[in-house]
Amino acid sequence: MHSPWQDTTLPAETRAAELLSRMTLEEKLAQLVGIWPGSDAGEGDDADVAPMQSEVNAATPDLQSLLADGLGQLTRPFGTAPVDPTEKTKALAEDQRRIADANRFSVPALVHEECLTGFAAWQAAIFPSPLAWGASFDPDLVEQAARLIGDSMRSVGIHQGLAPVLDVLRDPRWGRTEETIGEDPYLVATIGTGYVRGLETAGVVATLKHFAGHAASRGARNHAPVSIGPRELADIVLFPFEMALREGGARSVMSAYHDLDGVPASGDAWLLTELLREQWGFAGTVVSDYFAVSFLELTHRVAGSPAEAAALALAAGIDVELPAQRAYGTPLLKAVQSGEVAEELVDRSVLRVLTQKAELGLLDADWSPEPPALAADAPVDLDPPALRDAARRIAEESVVLLANRDNALPLAPGARIAVAGPLADDVAPLLGCYTFPRHVGVRHPELPVGVDLASPFAALRAEFPGADVTLAKTPRDAAGADVVVMVAGDRSGLFGRGTSGEGCDAADLELPDGQGELLDRLLDIGVPVVLVLLTGRPYALGRFADRLAACVQTFFPGEEGGGALAGVLSGRINPSGRLPVGVPSGPGAQPAPYLAPPLGRRGDASNIDPTPLYPFGHGLSYTSFAWEDASADATELSTDGGTTVRLTVTNTGALAGTEVVQLYLHDPVARVTRPVNRLIGYTRVTLEPGRSAEVRLGFHADLTAYTLAPGERIVEPGALELRLAASSEDIRHTVPVTLTGPERRVGLDRRLRCPVTVHPVHPVHPA
Amino acid sequence: MHSPWQDTTLPAETRAAELLSRMTLEEKLAQLVGIWPGSDAGEGDDADVAPMQSEVNAATPDLQSLLADGLGQLTRPFGTAPVDPTEKTKALAEDQRRIADANRFSVPALVHEECLTGFAAWQAAIFPSPLAWGASFDPDLVEQAARLIGDSMRSVGIHQGLAPVLDVLRDPRWGRTEETIGEDPYLVATIGTGYVRGLETAGVVATLKHFAGHAASRGARNHAPVSIGPRELADIVLFPFEMALREGGARSVMSAYHDLDGVPASGDAWLLTELLREQWGFAGTVVSDYFAVSFLELTHRVAGSPAEAAALALAAGIDVELPAQRAYGTPLLKAVQSGEVAEELVDRSVLRVLTQKAELGLLDADWSPEPPALAADAPVDLDPPALRDAARRIAEESVVLLANRDNALPLAPGARIAVAGPLADDVAPLLGCYTFPRHVGVRHPELPVGVDLASPFAALRAEFPGADVTLAKTPRDAAGADVVVMVAGDRSGLFGRGTSGEGCDAADLELPDGQGELLDRLLDIGVPVVLVLLTGRPYALGRFADRLAACVQTFFPGEEGGGALAGVLSGRINPSGRLPVGVPSGPGAQPAPYLAPPLGRRGDASNIDPTPLYPFGHGLSYTSFAWEDASADATELSTDGGTTVRLTVTNTGALAGTEVVQLYLHDPVARVTRPVNRLIGYTRVTLEPGRSAEVRLGFHADLTAYTLAPGERIVEPGALELRLAASSEDIRHTVPVTLTGPERRVGLDRRLRCPVTVHPVHPVHPA
Repeated sequence: MHSPWQDTTLPAETRAAELLSRMTLEEKLAQLVGIWPGSDAGEGDDADVAPMQSEVNAATPDLQSLLADGLGQLTRPFGTAPVDPTEKTKALAEDQRRIADANRFSVPALVHEECLTGFAAWQAAIFPSPLAWGASFDPDLVEQAARLIGDSMRSVGIHQGLAPVLDVLRDPRWGRTEETIGEDPYLVATIGTGYVRGLETAGVVATLKHFAGHAASRGARNHAPVSIGPRELADIVLFPFEMALREGGARSVMSAYHDLDGVPASGDAWLLTELLREQWGFAGTVVSDYFAVSFLELTHRVAGSPAEAAALALAAGIDVELPAQRAYGTPLLKAVQSGEVAEELVDRSVLRVLTQKAELGLLDADWSPEPPALAADAPVDLDPPALRDAARRIAEESVVLLANRDNALPLAPGARIAVAGPLADDVAPLLGCYTFPRHVGVRHPELPVGVDLASPFAALRAEFPGADVTLAKTPRDAAGADVVVMVAGDRSGLFGRGTSGEGCDAADLELPDGQGELLDRLLDIGVPVVLVLLTGRPYALGRFADRLAACVQTFFPGEEGGGALAGVLSGRINPSGRLPVGVPSGPGAQPAPYLAPPLGRRGDASNIDPTPLYPFGHGLSYTSFAWEDASADATELSTDGGTTVRLTVTNTGALAGTEVVQLYLHDPVARVTRPVNRLIGYTRVTLEPGRSAEVRLGFHADLTAYTLAPGERIVEPGALELRLAASSEDIRHTVPVTLTGPERRVGLDRRLRCPVTVHPVHPVHPA
Repeated sequence: MHSPWQDTTLPAETRAAELLSRMTLEEKLAQLVGIWPGSDAGEGDDADVAPMQSEVNAATPDLQSLLADGLGQLTRPFGTAPVDPTEKTKALAEDQRRIADANRFSVPALVHEECLTGFAAWQAAIFPSPLAWGASFDPDLVEQAARLIGDSMRSVGIHQGLAPVLDVLRDPRWGRTEETIGEDPYLVATIGTGYVRGLETAGVVATLKHFAGHAASRGARNHAPVSIGPRELADIVLFPFEMALREGGARSVMSAYHDLDGVPASGDAWLLTELLREQWGFAGTVVSDYFAVSFLELTHRVAGSPAEAAALALAAGIDVELPAQRAYGTPLLKAVQSGEVAEELVDRSVLRVLTQKAELGLLDADWSPEPPALAADAPVDLDPPALRDAARRIAEESVVLLANRDNALPLAPGARIAVAGPLADDVAPLLGCYTFPRHVGVRHPELPVGVDLASPFAALRAEFPGADVTLAKTPRDAAGADVVVMVAGDRSGLFGRGTSGEGCDAADLELPDGQGELLDRLLDIGVPVVLVLLTGRPYALGRFADRLAACVQTFFPGEEGGGALAGVLSGRINPSGRLPVGVPSGPGAQPAPYLAPPLGRRGDASNIDPTPLYPFGHGLSYTSFAWEDASADATELSTDGGTTVRLTVTNTGALAGTEVVQLYLHDPVARVTRPVNRLIGYTRVTLEPGRSAEVRLGFHADLTAYTLAPGERIVEPGALELRLAASSEDIRHTVPVTLTGPERRVGLDRRLRCPVTVHPVHPVHPA
């Protein structure tokens, strides 16, 4: 005989309500908090992986004393220190058994981990950074990878992953640029939704963050106040969250640290409840960013005590205080007991947490702490071939060939190649700030990195077995080479411990650590120089561009990144990545104008030309493509109608390759200013030489909707241009369409995207 | 027998309505537009004084053909080309007689000119830039100067001045930084209100600009979109406009070029009508920035034609299209005739224009085109001693002594002084972009500059007659000197023709034109270097600060600026200016965090330290001051109460001097994030050596009001700190006060400031 909350024939929420009704206040509150074992290792600021961790984090309380009331959450058992995956899987199972056994209802904790670039655990597969996912323009591949990442996490007992980051990049000086998918809301939305689908399909709760507006901090300084208005918020910042919830089915949202126009996101009832739940219908959990509830008191100063911070956050709609209890512990308990905080607010959040636990099977009578990996009775392998393969494919698809003067690339197989740059023979520039080695591993230099990695230099040596590949320690060393490959990179880290990463913001976009000066010296030698960038953000390349033989950009490409880069340099891989963020010409004048209306672009009114050197969507191939026969099935449609845009793409070169067809909306006259070009569709088109394909891009009037006033989104009649483009600034064909009929007000059911399909056609040039 | 609209016993609006009722549609529209003779000189972009002038400006139509319907406005008769003041005064009178005689109602034009740094006419007195007014912290002096400027304009037949700029500086990379009064809303409000009072007292219509938010453009690129939310708009951007209207009595407001969150300010009915008129009760005229009505069509693309632009602007609340008719001409006429635009909207604006003309005496039966200057029957002198004296006083009060290591200043009378810097013997760095020489004169190099000016070098030679003052053309030339005075400056201009000024934005805050590198070389010589800055914005001085013997900052100090600077260097003038904007340490990472809540400042979450090298309000003196006996008359007051904060300041040094006492509000806990320090009062205190004064700073709970939500401004109970400070970061005393009682919602009648008075006290140290 099961307890009612264990009855799997009942809806999850019903089960949760049953359980909730039996709980004491202490038991309820216990579900909203957790512990973060090992986070108080006492190493001080230098070891923090969250802001103010050493100041705010209480010492881990004695586990046993807590457990009688239950334990809602468990923070990063794998991601806090290097642990053997097999041993930790077993230990976590034992902890979960102990947690479940100690409370009246046998409820285990919900365990979360970071998974921004794969499962952030020692010896786990390391994927390219999200900015590289963006460069792949391949949401399906990202979805597949996320599914594998989720499977891997689920197999060791993890229920929730704190990814993806859906912040639309607004200023690349921000250290977390690498964590974003790029500067375009549609790209972020589609790729991010792919990631969410993959993770959720694996049964792992995806957590959308940072809700909302975190990327737009003043001066790109992490946590600084955000100054944006409601239209920009709705049409740029919120769009990816909307898609990832509606189409991806994400079950959790993380509140952000910053304040927007004076209101801290983690205390914003409009954002976390009115918009997210009442308008959007979100039914999952809202978790705080680490310490963000305490920040309401400690940094935002909108609360005078931990209790006030808890009351504000709970009322706003934060269900779970991460990473560990502070405000939601004793202070909230006392505030509820004294009547300052309504117990209904506690119940509201506990119900959401327990509903999620029911969905995850954690309330089932037959729940077992042993996760699938232990059932297999074999060592846990977090970096198996399937994950490495997925990591490799994203890495390969995300290498962007920025420039290739006189076809300097691919390099000749027998070339004498001098590889230069301080990070050329280092694995650091493969790894983003949420990879385990950079996030945690840097504090454990005695331990091996945990996965196989090849530095760019090592990968080049392996790629060119017949060539003379040497490491040039000084520019002089490179003088006798046929070509110099300058590797310029970031060393990602946390809170000032890197040149990119969380808390590692840039004052400007000069290549870091003097690598620009080194490049100048290499360019003076007279040997052709190929610049290879492995960075967390775009850097200003204007003063080098005319002197480089070729330039290749990748964004922390992960454990298979060395080979992917080397493969592009050798020609084994035909590059197909596209820029998810523009590369600026000069290092200053940020933020740049992507998505700007006409007055945000180069104009008569300012001497500053903000035009990027290489715009969003740019990327070259070793083959060539013809773009022909652009048309729309209908050129006049109603304000609630749709059509299909057609384009024939032909590989006119000698190599198989992939083109990325991009569709931008240009709205010539509207009631508010509009971006000159706004991405509304894209697809990769892979073609053998001589082959053609028809690309069919769905278009619906909903895609032209914009926010006129808060809560009021409209589709206007009028003339439009649908621009088929190879980048946001390289328009190949313009298809005019006209929307007719009345102005429409659209709601939450509007289409956010239309399908794009690729259809092989009879060879124009027989292969 | 007068016509009713000429009856001076009737209220101005009644007279205007009488006249309006008699007008044809063509006659009405004629009142809303004007002409700009001489603006189509055909010199192309290089001569533009307004953005897109050469593209948008229609050729000046034949005057006679227009005049039958009347002519509402006349644009810049003195400010468009160099004209002899006496001759132009006569010519303008003749034009006005012709305009009045040609229409049925004998209505002359309303004539406007620029007066950002004094009357922008050839041979007119040139005042320091507004940023220097800010540095003076002396609203009374600015008011006196504006009165004199207004008298001078009125004397030659000018009715309206397009000043002051009340944009609160948000990013000093913006080229128009020099045109602002600074980065603090209270300073901008009080100084700007002083300017408005002066101009309006002289009978000249003051024009508040740029309404609103213009300084917050993305990346500080002129005209780029503005991303701010409603709270920031209300509490920072709008505050100076509110004060200048309520306390200054400004009769005109100019709409801005940019869009804010997608809505162009010049087409924003909420801003120009709902807020400005319905909420604030403004009854004057709203004029467009030059071509801003056309920009709705041409750059913002929120209108598809000139007629649509006119309809949008008129409905939003723009009464007058400046600088000349385009959209409000034939396009608007046809739109009204066809019924697309309601004639009532035209009437609304015409009524405002005619009311203003009635107030100005332009509808009086005895109106004469001859202005006072012609009645005097003497040559018109636009640079008489009284104006030069006012310009000198502001220049002297606005010199800021940033640093003075080992009392390197004042310089010894017999010192060997090497003066270096490419602009050291140039008058350009005295002059802002709206001075006639920089605005217009640069196109007429054959003409003399029009007023007496001494370059910094010439002024130093005159200041040190017994010293060996030489111009060091190269750093080597300076090696034998006792001290090097490095003059670093901007050369202001328009639209890319300067290093500061409208359309001359900066990518970063490095000293321009290689002057930083020159300074490095001078610092290498081994001779003490005094850096003297005459710039339009603050520049990054962090890498020089420790090596400079002293540093003096002034912001385009005008026609008497050379002497003011030299006087500070000799000790004849004891410096008393204070920074109206922080001087940054490094050149990047803008915008900076002035007015930021705690998370906008230096913190754990970002490696970037945005703390300015010299903060807002900083400035040194050659004497010293003791700040003692700080107290408040009451430390507990109700949320609608007030008190007085007292402080005794004593000149403890050997020289007479002026201290600037600043009062900042620190609100420890609030419902939205608050600036850590917010200026709410200040005063200059001039004291002989050994003398003391009691400073009494009024404080009222209204000064703590902040915007909780759009339209909802509250005063909260709770503990506060009133911080008596020598700069925004140099707190000398903290006076705690507590507000008690209920939270109050405050409206438009709230106090915006409280009086500050200075009372001499019995000498502590007899002189």
